[in-house]
Amino acid sequence: MEDPWATSPQPPSAPHPRSPPGPGADLHLDLRLDLPERGATGVRTALIRSLRDAVRGGRLAPGTRLPSSRSLAADLGIARNTVADAYGELVAEGWLTARQGSGTRVARRVVPPEPTPPRTPPTAGPGGRPTYDLRPGSPDVSSFPRAAWLTAARRALTAAPHDAFAYGGPSGRPELRRALADYLARARGVRTDPERIVVCAGFKQGLAVLSRVLRAAGERDVAVESYGLDLHWDVMRRAGLRTVPLPVDGRGARTDELAGLTGVRTVLLTPAHQFPTGVSLHPDRRAAVVDWASRTGGLVVEDDYDGEFRYDRNPVGALQGLDPERVLYLGTSSKSLTPALRLAWMVVPGHLMDDLLAAKGTGEWPTAGLDQLTLAEFLDSGAYDRHVRGMRLRYRRRRDQLIAALAERAPQVRVRGIAAGLHAVLELPPGTERSVVQGAAWQGLAMDGLARFRHASGASPGGEPGDVLGDALVVGYGTPPDHAFSGALEALYRALPG
Amino acid sequence: MEDPWATSPQPPSAPHPRSPPGPGADLHLDLRLDLPERGATGVRTALIRSLRDAVRGGRLAPGTRLPSSRSLAADLGIARNTVADAYGELVAEGWLTARQGSGTRVARRVVPPEPTPPRTPPTAGPGGRPTYDLRPGSPDVSSFPRAAWLTAARRALTAAPHDAFAYGGPSGRPELRRALADYLARARGVRTDPERIVVCAGFKQGLAVLSRVLRAAGERDVAVESYGLDLHWDVMRRAGLRTVPLPVDGRGARTDELAGLTGVRTVLLTPAHQFPTGVSLHPDRRAAVVDWASRTGGLVVEDDYDGEFRYDRNPVGALQGLDPERVLYLGTSSKSLTPALRLAWMVVPGHLMDDLLAAKGTGEWPTAGLDQLTLAEFLDSGAYDRHVRGMRLRYRRRRDQLIAALAERAPQVRVRGIAAGLHAVLELPPGTERSVVQGAAWQGLAMDGLARFRHASGASPGGEPGDVLGDALVVGYGTPPDHAFSGALEALYRALPG
Repeated sequence: MEDPWATSPQPPSAPHPRSPPGPGADLHLDLRLDLPERGATGVRTALIRSLRDAVRGGRLAPGTRLPSSRSLAADLGIARNTVADAYGELVAEGWLTARQGSGTRVARRVVPPEPTPPRTPPTAGPGGRPTYDLRPGSPDVSSFPRAAWLTAARRALTAAPHDAFAYGGPSGRPELRRALADYLARARGVRTDPERIVVCAGFKQGLAVLSRVLRAAGERDVAVESYGLDLHWDVMRRAGLRTVPLPVDGRGARTDELAGLTGVRTVLLTPAHQFPTGVSLHPDRRAAVVDWASRTGGLVVEDDYDGEFRYDRNPVGALQGLDPERVLYLGTSSKSLTPALRLAWMVVPGHLMDDLLAAKGTGEWPTAGLDQLTLAEFLDSGAYDRHVRGMRLRYRRRRDQLIAALAERAPQVRVRGIAAGLHAVLELPPGTERSVVQGAAWQGLAMDGLARFRHASGASPGGEPGDVLGDALVVGYGTPPDHAFSGALEALYRALPG
Repeated sequence: MEDPWATSPQPPSAPHPRSPPGPGADLHLDLRLDLPERGATGVRTALIRSLRDAVRGGRLAPGTRLPSSRSLAADLGIARNTVADAYGELVAEGWLTARQGSGTRVARRVVPPEPTPPRTPPTAGPGGRPTYDLRPGSPDVSSFPRAAWLTAARRALTAAPHDAFAYGGPSGRPELRRALADYLARARGVRTDPERIVVCAGFKQGLAVLSRVLRAAGERDVAVESYGLDLHWDVMRRAGLRTVPLPVDGRGARTDELAGLTGVRTVLLTPAHQFPTGVSLHPDRRAAVVDWASRTGGLVVEDDYDGEFRYDRNPVGALQGLDPERVLYLGTSSKSLTPALRLAWMVVPGHLMDDLLAAKGTGEWPTAGLDQLTLAEFLDSGAYDRHVRGMRLRYRRRRDQLIAALAERAPQVRVRGIAAGLHAVLELPPGTERSVVQGAAWQGLAMDGLARFRHASGASPGGEPGDVLGDALVVGYGTPPDHAFSGALEALYRALPG
């Protein structure tokens, strides 16, 4: 499939054996017609490529007059019509110009490309590319179930109706919405039907569409947890919303304070496993937020990013199940399967559905249909459940390994948020977080401190700075591949204050 | 994978054989512990599901006091701890409340979901769902090369490095950018290297990111062809840009008029095959636009949506090849392969690269990594070329069939824009376009008139209404599956004015 003309080495500088003198002479060194393709079409194609390449590469300078088609044809031993055709094509493309009386010339406007500046690779820390990565937010991507996924893709592609290959609608494939409705009811206690599900190209897209809908409806302020992902707050800010931090403590977000936030009618929460502190929203707080939404007509946006991974008892069911009309549920395949799939799902209260689909249909683009069908098959066949079960065991083993080793090697460090998810919080002595993170980076271990996830305007609604949590590390034990996990833990122990 | 509790039929109303009188009596009719899962965990899980289902379905009303764990355990013949665990779990989820002294009750805040209103399917015309579809813009999706795509997916997944399953960067997978650089140079005369390519989730995403970059750089007005896709103009408008129409005639867009548009430094064009008129941009106009961009420091955005499909001679090479620093090339797999893939590519001038990657990295979301790897393999293996060749033959046969039949059945209709692409323009007698389109819709044939694609403020820059093209149909002969093509043509002939 290589273009022999584009990649052939520079032609030898010896003159072409058949070159006569004359106006074509300038070309002899540049045109090598090896005729790799047969027939008149092949010759013409080869000639076009060769001439284009010569102009492109600067070997034929702008303004250069080309030999007449008769002369070049004779020179190359090919038909004159073929040369005339090739010239015509290159004139049509703008490489050459043809003017009555001045013959065919290389166009003056062909500008050589600027050299591409070398891109510097992103550096992870002052010590350069890290050897180990314990930053939270990514599953162990080496565990992607390639064979099972391929099996599902084969079945899905074979069974797919033709319209699966057309432009898709904003709500996503019906096959996937059916499979998700079953799965979410069974595994997460979500109350829904396929008509209430909207498939999106990742969590961020869903949040972006929702934010635009809320802003268009006149909303301005959205409460968020005072510790969380700046990435998500940015999505809302770009839609014109303001994020108001709600303090987080050992029982999760202070949803009991929502009533005091004037003008706030929407709150974004991570109830199953607060990110990054790792606590579950306390039952009282769950009740408080659903009561608040019901009383005020407010909306709770439930980010259920890793709800499948809970280790010591059954997963806590989704908050959405308590009030499907006031809780919008957002789930994703990024933690349970792979972020490379770009598939997430929203379970939408009925009153928001039309606006949301309208906003997604006009402002956004459809989600990849083939992947949706494959995920539907993956869910329906039970492969998703099997994969999640396997990963739950694997992550739990890692968590246990982390806790056991910490108890032995760094008994002074308290570990929090370990009941679920792919990360834990390690409490540090006051004032040490920054130096521990920097020291680890110098030794090739990428880690995040808790402060990195704090909302910039983190003062509590009352104005007290009471929601600043102590120094801590957020350790993503799901991130490294299996073979690197022990090494990453070793590096972690070395980085901890003695 | 079904939840037996969620889907089991209503239990018989006969009292439970082991039911004693007392506070547990209310529950007997609702709890059916068939114990499909073994062991204490299985019993607890079944009990949790059963109770949750009873609350959710309204069989246990809000505020109902539940039996004590001791009493329910005796009632069901299971361990008391299991009941206590299940209650604890449901309290944690918010279904139940537990208060000292008042026992365990069904939470008051559990709101039943509103019934989902039935969604009305989109209607294609007054006659309801069309039998035939000759609207332009979609390839024949029944021709998607399923087997070849699966082969590529298997190879790509098998060979993929682990990082292919992690979050991807904004520029896209290096494997795909390499494959595209080769392909675009070979097939479209694009001058690039992989570092200049940015993969995006469809043409619209690319245009949206670019529009934001232009707006942030202070641009305000963008020239567009006076006939084109409203969908694309909308994307630019949402980024805060204004679209200024450039007249279109039989030689394509009047790029010679760009110099007269004060303040316009960007133009969006479809040079290879103007959409919807179907003409190629005339060599003089190609020269004019590249000269304009070079002289003014302007930018040409080249929408090469169907450049691969040209029938009577070689494809016209991309405009980008004339000046890679002033032309930004946008290509897509939506016409050549399937819109369901959501993969497109931009070839970006060096001076825009940093801003574009920054805008895409923050405002957008990464593109699906697995599909990118599969497309890379599909390109590298030659399967893409084979598919395009096959489709080119197939579409050309359709075009020839359309032209031949029109010559015989409707010789008064002139056909335009037939050298390339998946659609043709059929000229109609003045004043008939609207009635023809409506009449066709009534007969189950979906079609678009040319007027549908006209820019709303379509007056020419000088103010004359000189760019209004005559009545015509835009016939997408690529859209129907093979088996429906003859029928669609029959319907078309019937709809034409006699």
